[in-house]
Amino acid sequence: MATAGKIVASSLCHTEMFHLFEGKDKRGFPTVLGHEGAGVVESVGPGVTDFKPGDKVIPVSVAHCGECRFCKSPKTNLCERSWINDHVDLMSYPTTCFTCRGQPILQFTSTGTFSEYIVINQIYVVKIHDDAPLDRVCLLGCGIPTGYGAAVNTAGVTPGSVCAVFGLGAVGLAAVMGCKNAGASRIFAVDINEQKFEKAKLFGATDFLNPKAYDKPISEVLAELTNGGVDFSIECVGNPEVMRAALESCIKGWGVSVLVGYTDVDFSARPIQLISGKTWKGTLLGGYKIKDSLPKLVNDYMTGKIMVDEFITHKMDLEQINDAINLMKTGQCIRCILNISK
Amino acid sequence: MATAGKIVASSLCHTEMFHLFEGKDKRGFPTVLGHEGAGVVESVGPGVTDFKPGDKVIPVSVAHCGECRFCKSPKTNLCERSWINDHVDLMSYPTTCFTCRGQPILQFTSTGTFSEYIVINQIYVVKIHDDAPLDRVCLLGCGIPTGYGAAVNTAGVTPGSVCAVFGLGAVGLAAVMGCKNAGASRIFAVDINEQKFEKAKLFGATDFLNPKAYDKPISEVLAELTNGGVDFSIECVGNPEVMRAALESCIKGWGVSVLVGYTDVDFSARPIQLISGKTWKGTLLGGYKIKDSLPKLVNDYMTGKIMVDEFITHKMDLEQINDAINLMKTGQCIRCILNISK
Ligand SMILES: NC(=O)c1ccc[n+]([C@@H]2O[C@H](COP(=O)([O-])OP(=O)(O)OC[C@H]3O[C@@H](n4cnc5c(N)ncnc54)[C@H](O)[C@@H]3O)[C@@H](O)[C@H]2O)c1
Ligand SMILES: NC(=O)c1ccc[n+]([C@@H]2O[C@H](COP(=O)([O-])OP(=O)(O)OC[C@H]3O[C@@H](n4cnc5c(N)ncnc54)[C@H](O)[C@@H]3O)[C@@H](O)[C@H]2O)c1
Ligand SMILES: [Zn+2]
Ligand SMILES: [Zn+2]
Ligand SMILES: [Zn+2]
Ligand SMILES: [Zn+2]
Repeated sequence: MATAGKIVASSLCHTEMFHLFEGKDKRGFPTVLGHEGAGVVESVGPGVTDFKPGDKVIPVSVAHCGECRFCKSPKTNLCERSWINDHVDLMSYPTTCFTCRGQPILQFTSTGTFSEYIVINQIYVVKIHDDAPLDRVCLLGCGIPTGYGAAVNTAGVTPGSVCAVFGLGAVGLAAVMGCKNAGASRIFAVDINEQKFEKAKLFGATDFLNPKAYDKPISEVLAELTNGGVDFSIECVGNPEVMRAALESCIKGWGVSVLVGYTDVDFSARPIQLISGKTWKGTLLGGYKIKDSLPKLVNDYMTGKIMVDEFITHKMDLEQINDAINLMKTGQCIRCILNISK
Repeated sequence: MATAGKIVASSLCHTEMFHLFEGKDKRGFPTVLGHEGAGVVESVGPGVTDFKPGDKVIPVSVAHCGECRFCKSPKTNLCERSWINDHVDLMSYPTTCFTCRGQPILQFTSTGTFSEYIVINQIYVVKIHDDAPLDRVCLLGCGIPTGYGAAVNTAGVTPGSVCAVFGLGAVGLAAVMGCKNAGASRIFAVDINEQKFEKAKLFGATDFLNPKAYDKPISEVLAELTNGGVDFSIECVGNPEVMRAALESCIKGWGVSVLVGYTDVDFSARPIQLISGKTWKGTLLGGYKIKDSLPKLVNDYMTGKIMVDEFITHKMDLEQINDAINLMKTGQCIRCILNISK
């Protein structure tokens, strides 16, 4: 059930940085990175009926087979056939479409969009609007739906609520946009890199906090500013200390904290945090079932309901990939679009 | 706004064992223990209008002032005026009705029912049915509503679901009863003390697991027995390893784990557990707002809708308190009712 396609554009997400520089498990190499791409179908394998050559598509890291008990449940987007169920330490299936001198090269998160051509199971591929600009909507392949859905789907941000978003990369900024669109009355944007605050304001943040600027824990700062804590907090960093701070920043009784950032070390907290009525959740791609939701998000972008262009700070060619990685690593960019095939 | 009352009967809950033997913070001594009691109002202070001498009452560790923003919210029972908000390490308010040779003696969890007479703010007191047997309904002061509500309120156990309850003291057995009454199709009772299984069966458990009897983690055992994990897990032990196991035992996508057991050390887990769609919650007294719910639970007992007598394994006089503590500590009893005043 394979589809083969040409990747036109791809961005970098922090999950690549995690795999390259932070992850403890090094079995997921060699690999072709890249999982925020968009392209065009070149050919389809036997049994593939939903795609034809020329279709504009987004390949996504989260499967949607439509047939398993998870796909059939309205509660989750975690398809039983996703690589993440059984191969999370590898960050991909053990099988791949790539070889180099006879040796297999993995497809990172089972996509691998830093490649001119990829072959991928159709359960990971979404057909989108024929007029969609691929060098922008590639961002809808991971970071934007993740942060946006973390706010509107997983947290379920309510009108008038007070929110805090920790980490203002593309994921966090999309979470800010989600809080705003869900009607939050106050949105705290929290980052140790103050250069991110301007963008956060553009996406709807109302207050800006640098935890390093305070002598006391950021959860205490937020509790003072909000009469006890925020209604919703969203962690978009991937750091266990920040995950804990995000939970601790929630108000007792009904605060909900959503873990979006990914890491392979434990997070922790005191039991009283949950016993006092807070809820800890997490999200994979913002809870979106890709085949139902991504075409709609593309249309929402094309009709101005969600921002996408505003996430793009840099554009480069695939050859400059190491410069792009360096920009991400040093916090100088939000999203850099790589021109993969001209 | 004080009410003074005679305590007729009181039981022991594991939270006393925690305070005596497990808690790290030793500032909460000297104290009068006891928080699962029932008694009769003797006198009321100025401004108290809801109680009169002779009323049968249950004093509870969780306040319900009815006026704060938490009491007014349907989402929580965590009254802003509860001691737990600001004095959790002390396990009571710093103020107390008890003194001994001029020195204050704390009221454990602001109740202190191992005493013939106590004075307590009316926001902690619930008037119950005149015919309620105090030497039984005292159990409705903590353990039973906690476990029962953890299942029916906090977890929100759904009909046909698969549940696991870790720890089969009174709290865990009440959780089993809650799962059963909510219509769970399968209820795993998990304890390292197999003597608890018989009672668990009485309350509705269908399967019985001793984690010590397996070479692999109990979460793996449960995953195999349930095709991926349980829909709801409820931790009623107060052990961080068990809290983690309870989360890990939930099914990806929609599993909900509720932390009921209390301890003052960190619990932890891997981020992927939440990112894969599980939810971690906690409960205080099963989420019940005491003034609304406890009178109803007393009536539910009196009309046979919930079991209470079945939790009672021992009865003693207050003088035998150390024997009762020893029974709890060594896992030989579910609940021991102490005869406080004859
Ligand atoms: N759950 C999912 O489905 C999913 C999907 C995509 C990305 N992610 C994860 O989301 C996270 C964010 O991704 P991104 O691409 O936006 O990353 P990014 O690197 O662009 O942004 C991270 C931001 O966090 C900030 N930060 C670092 N330490 C901080 C601290 N202690 N306190 C506050 N802010 C801090 C950085 O300055 C930066 O602005 C990563 O962990 C990534 O792996 C998860
Ligand atoms: N959240 C609340 O509002 C609230 C209220 C009351 C009690 N509690 C807490 O609930 C917990 C249970 O209270 P209880 O009175 O029923 O306690 P208990 O001591 O009667 O029962 C605890 C049970 O856990 C079992 N156990 C111990 N280690 C275990 C392990 N590793 N795996 C499985 N089972 C194990 C014991 O054998 C025992 O049967 C305590 O932590 C108590 O402090 C919380
Ligand atoms: Zn990503
Ligand atoms: Zn599926
Ligand atoms: Zn108790
Ligand atoms: Zn109140």
